[in-house]
Amino acid sequence: MNFIASQRASSFVPDDFYLRRVSHFARLNVGRGDIVMLGDSLINGCEWHELLERPCVKNRGINGDTVEGVRQRVEGIMQGCPAKLFLMVGINDVSHNIAAQDVACSIIALVEYLHRLSPCTQVYVHSLLPFNAAIHYASLSGKEEVVLQINHLLSEAAEEFDYTYINLYPHFSTSAGVLDAEYSNDGLHLSGSGYALWARLLQPYMCE
Amino acid sequence: MNFIASQRASSFVPDDFYLRRVSHFARLNVGRGDIVMLGDSLINGCEWHELLERPCVKNRGINGDTVEGVRQRVEGIMQGCPAKLFLMVGINDVSHNIAAQDVACSIIALVEYLHRLSPCTQVYVHSLLPFNAAIHYASLSGKEEVVLQINHLLSEAAEEFDYTYINLYPHFSTSAGVLDAEYSNDGLHLSGSGYALWARLLQPYMCE
Repeated sequence: MNFIASQRASSFVPDDFYLRRVSHFARLNVGRGDIVMLGDSLINGCEWHELLERPCVKNRGINGDTVEGVRQRVEGIMQGCPAKLFLMVGINDVSHNIAAQDVACSIIALVEYLHRLSPCTQVYVHSLLPFNAAIHYASLSGKEEVVLQINHLLSEAAEEFDYTYINLYPHFSTSAGVLDAEYSNDGLHLSGSGYALWARLLQPYMCE
Repeated sequence: MNFIASQRASSFVPDDFYLRRVSHFARLNVGRGDIVMLGDSLINGCEWHELLERPCVKNRGINGDTVEGVRQRVEGIMQGCPAKLFLMVGINDVSHNIAAQDVACSIIALVEYLHRLSPCTQVYVHSLLPFNAAIHYASLSGKEEVVLQINHLLSEAAEEFDYTYINLYPHFSTSAGVLDAEYSNDGLHLSGSGYALWARLLQPYMCE
């Protein structure tokens, strides 16, 4: 598969919250040695520097963000050449009806862009998490297979495109393939127990 | 005025986001020497430990929170006996039609409760900020005077109830008494420039 050629961006219209957060990030520094958590509401919703017990961890998540949204705002973040960057984005693209291959390819193109902006930064790409559309998120209904396909493509491309794939999915999924209610109260976003599990799964990558 | 007797709580129904954030906080530590930023969306929306350049700063803000909501969740935070606590809450109570004296008195009662939970913690109470209801927030329309009254009461009670009052209001207000558009894109929440100004105003209190 030609990962770069087949990307198709989700349409992206930033709201007031998004623009405020971008303007906040523009006044915060990222430097060498820092660890950037980049992505959508799943990143936004966590006090990462506390949970990972590292003051150098910077939260650069924005609720509702898409692959295209991240791409448009990432240049300022990468200017500081952070040591590591952990990416979690794509579920909002799925919710906007973008096909699995298009989401995966735009994520991979984003990683290529990150490498160009800051070749010294180690890039980690999270799998998408399972969800439970029955609780709140009708826009994700029937798209369980799309998430599995995206994760498969992201896993397959990791070596070629020089990133580490972090497969969170099986740790958060029930045997029925939905987000375990232990980790979420709305079928999509994570509660304290969900973030605690995520942080435990990240520990091996923190000290690499 | 009897500050304690006249408090009246805003009704408070936590939503999914609120409950997730509370469950997240329950798994994070606050310890001696820490600085807690406590309150509503104005606190939630900022990467305080970065902006204030202190890893010991902990964000304990939750979008939509009220005085009663903060009171219900603060016990776990105070168990760690933080060095300082900065409180910003009340505008959602105003938006829920609570009278100025009731809001101010419930904030003061909350401060009393904070002192009982952790006598060693220095408590700082921010003034409410001005807003511009004409942009988005019809529920605040015509309540400019309520904010001024709350701020006056909070200022008056500081010495008696052993807290430091931080008067942000004049720094964020236009001469017409609304939130300066330089600091907000929706008339209520702060952009990067607003948080940068707030952080500058906090610097003298960080090193006390």
